[in-house]
Amino acid sequence: MPINAENIFANLENVRRRSPLVHNITNYVVMNTTANALLAVGASPVMAHAPEEVEDMVNIALALVINIGTLSGHWVEAMFKAALRAKKKGIPIVLDPVGAGATPYRTRTVRELIQAVPPAIVRGNASEIMAMIDNLTKTKGVDSAAATEAALDSASHLSQQLDSVVCVSGETDYIVDKKNVAMIKNGHAWMPKVTGLGCTASALCGAFAAVNPDPFAATASAMAVMGIAGEIAAEKSSGPGSLQVEFLDALFNLNSAEIEQRLKMA
Amino acid sequence: MPINAENIFANLENVRRRSPLVHNITNYVVMNTTANALLAVGASPVMAHAPEEVEDMVNIALALVINIGTLSGHWVEAMFKAALRAKKKGIPIVLDPVGAGATPYRTRTVRELIQAVPPAIVRGNASEIMAMIDNLTKTKGVDSAAATEAALDSASHLSQQLDSVVCVSGETDYIVDKKNVAMIKNGHAWMPKVTGLGCTASALCGAFAAVNPDPFAATASAMAVMGIAGEIAAEKSSGPGSLQVEFLDALFNLNSAEIEQRLKMA
Amino acid sequence: MPINAENIFANLENVRRRSPLVHNITNYVVMNTTANALLAVGASPVMAHAPEEVEDMVNIALALVINIGTLSGHWVEAMFKAALRAKKKGIPIVLDPVGAGATPYRTRTVRELIQAVPPAIVRGNASEIMAMIDNLTKTKGVDSAAATEAALDSASHLSQQLDSVVCVSGETDYIVDKKNVAMIKNGHAWMPKVTGLGCTASALCGAFAAVNPDPFAATASAMAVMGIAGEIAAEKSSGPGSLQVEFLDALFNLNSAEIEQRLKMA
Repeated sequence: MPINAENIFANLENVRRRSPLVHNITNYVVMNTTANALLAVGASPVMAHAPEEVEDMVNIALALVINIGTLSGHWVEAMFKAALRAKKKGIPIVLDPVGAGATPYRTRTVRELIQAVPPAIVRGNASEIMAMIDNLTKTKGVDSAAATEAALDSASHLSQQLDSVVCVSGETDYIVDKKNVAMIKNGHAWMPKVTGLGCTASALCGAFAAVNPDPFAATASAMAVMGIAGEIAAEKSSGPGSLQVEFLDALFNLNSAEIEQRLKMA
Repeated sequence: MPINAENIFANLENVRRRSPLVHNITNYVVMNTTANALLAVGASPVMAHAPEEVEDMVNIALALVINIGTLSGHWVEAMFKAALRAKKKGIPIVLDPVGAGATPYRTRTVRELIQAVPPAIVRGNASEIMAMIDNLTKTKGVDSAAATEAALDSASHLSQQLDSVVCVSGETDYIVDKKNVAMIKNGHAWMPKVTGLGCTASALCGAFAAVNPDPFAATASAMAVMGIAGEIAAEKSSGPGSLQVEFLDALFNLNSAEIEQRLKMA
Repeated sequence: MPINAENIFANLENVRRRSPLVHNITNYVVMNTTANALLAVGASPVMAHAPEEVEDMVNIALALVINIGTLSGHWVEAMFKAALRAKKKGIPIVLDPVGAGATPYRTRTVRELIQAVPPAIVRGNASEIMAMIDNLTKTKGVDSAAATEAALDSASHLSQQLDSVVCVSGETDYIVDKKNVAMIKNGHAWMPKVTGLGCTASALCGAFAAVNPDPFAATASAMAVMGIAGEIAAEKSSGPGSLQVEFLDALFNLNSAEIEQRLKMA
C-alpha cells in the first residue's frame, strides 16, 4: 500500500473507528498534552508506570509508547517490564529517546532498552538518534543541535541493527527502514516552540501502529498528520500558546481534503 | 434544601466566597488542568503527595480529593495516610477510582482504600464504579465501556455499603445515595475528548463538599456546574483544544441566569 | 546598567538570541506550562530530576531553577545534588519556595537548601518568603495569605543573610538585595487564577539570569516581562483559560514598544 494522501487518511479513519488503547510510559511535562492529542486523533490513551501494573496494562493495550523525557529508576524498571511484555504479546513499541546524548544516564538507558527489546519504531530529533549509536555526538538538552540530514546515517544504521523504523524529525521528517526512506516536509516553524510536540508525534506513531501492521506506513501517516495539523493550526494562531490549542482542534477535525491539498512528501 | 438552579448557584457562590483549600493527591496527567479548574471555580488548590507532609496538608485543608490515575507505591501510601487523617479531622474525602477494573493493582488499591476509609463521595464512570464491587466487569482502560445505566446497581450497593454518595458520570450523571437518586443531563459530547474532565469533576465535588455539609447536594451541584460550563464552552469551541480553554473561562464566569436556563435535572 | 524599558528589552533580546538551556527541577503541576513559557521567551527548557543525571544536566545548563511545589524524598535529594553542582560550576540558582510555611516538610527543606547552597535568586509570595526565616507565619496553602508589604522585612533579612536577590511577588513585585529595592507594578488580577504563573516567573528569572551576570537586573527584567505579558494577555482574554493561552503568545511576541508603554516601575 503506497504512502499517499488517500492512504494516510484511511489510516487516520482507522484510528478514529477502532480507537485503540495506547499505553504510554512518558514524561511528566507532556502527559496532559499527549493524552489530549491521542484523544483528538481518535485513540484511547492510558498512562501507567507502576511496576505493579504495567504488564497488566500492556495486556489490554494495542500499542506501547515509551518516552524517557523525565526518567528515573523506578520508571526505567517499568519501561523494561512493559517492553518485554509488549514484545511477548506482539504489540508495537514506539521509543522516544528524549534527550539521549544530553546525559550518560539517558544514553545508557536508551541503549539498554533497544538491546533488550528492539522497538517497532524509534522517533527522535537528529542529535537524539545519533546519540543512540554514536559516542561522539553532543546534545544540547532536548533540542536538536545537529542538522537533521547528518543523522540519516545513524538512522540507517539503527534501522538495520534493530530491524526498526527510525524517524528523524525536524523541518523535514525522515522515515527510514532497511529498504525505504520517506520524507515529510509538512509542519511549521512554531511547532518546536510548543513543548512536547515531538513526544506527541511519537504517541501518534503508537496510535497508527496499533491499527496498521506496517510500521513504516504507520509512522509516515502519523508524521504527515502531525505536520498538516500543525500547519493548519499555525495559520489560525498568534504564537505558540494558541498553536497548542488550535493543533488539537485541527487534529480532531482533519479531513481528506486537507491532507490531499497539503501533503508534502518525497 | 432542594437541588435546583437557585441552590446550585448559592453553592457556587459559597465556593467563590470561602475559597476552600482543596488538597489533591491526583494523577500526573491532570494536575495542571485540575488546579486551574479549582481556581476558576473559586477554590484554592494544593497538590501534595509526600508521605512526609500529607497529614500536615490535610490539617489545613477543607477537603481531600484522592485520584488513582497514575498510582504507584509511595503515592498509595500517602493516599492512606491522608485519608486516615482526613477522617480523623472530619473533612470530606472524594475518591476518583480512575481505571479501576483495568488492572488488578488499581482495583485492589481502590477496594482497600474504601475499606480503610469510606469516602464521602465516589465519582467515576460506569465501568470504574462497577469494578469497585464486581469482579466480572472488564474496563477498557480509563474510558467507560459499560453503559452508565448498567452501573446504577453497583452504585446503589456501593452507596449502601459505604454510606457514601456515589456519582456515575456519563452522558447522564447519576448521583446516588442510600435514599436518593438525582440525574444531571448537562454536558457535551466533546467533553470526553478532553483528558481529565472526569478528574476535574471529582475535584469540583471536593470544592463543593468543602463548603456544604450535605455531600449529595455538593455532588449534584458540582456535576451540574461541570456540565453547564462544558455546554457553554462547547458552543464557543471548534474542537477539544478550544473546549478545554473555554471551559475554564465558562467556569470562572458562570452566573445564575446560565444555570437557571440550562440546568437539565431529573 | 539602570533598570528601564530599554535595558529590559535588551535583556529579553539576549535571552532570545542566546537561548540558554535552563535546567528545572520543578513541580508536576507546572512542568508543561513552565516549559512552554521558557520556549516562548526564547530559552531552552530541560526538566530532569533523577539523582543519576542531575549533575550531568547542570553541567550543560546555564541556570538551575529549583521549585519545591510537589517535593518528595528522591526529588529533594536531587535538588541538593544539582544545587551543589551548580554552585561549583558557577551558574545561577533560582529557588521557588512553593508552599513554604504550609507544612513543616516544605519549610524545613527550603531552609536546609538555602543553608547548603545560597541561591542567586529567591522568588515567592509574601507568606512563603516570610516562612523562610520566620517561625510564626501561617501559610494558607500556596496562596499568599499575608500582605506583600509585610514580607519586605523578611525579604531584606533573607537577602542580607544569603547575599541573594529576593523577589516578593504579588500585586506589586518587590525585588530586594542588600542595597536596592525595585518595584514592578505590572500584571493583572486574573494572573493568580492561572496555576503556576508564579512558578513561571521563577523560571523566567532563571532564563534572564543565565544571560545576565547581574541577578538583580535579571530578576527585575523577568518580573517586568511577566507582568507586561500578563496585562497584554488579559486584555485579549475572557477568563483564566484564555489568559494562559494569550500569555504565551504575548511572551513570544513581546516588543520594545509594549515594554516602553506599559512598564510601571518604581
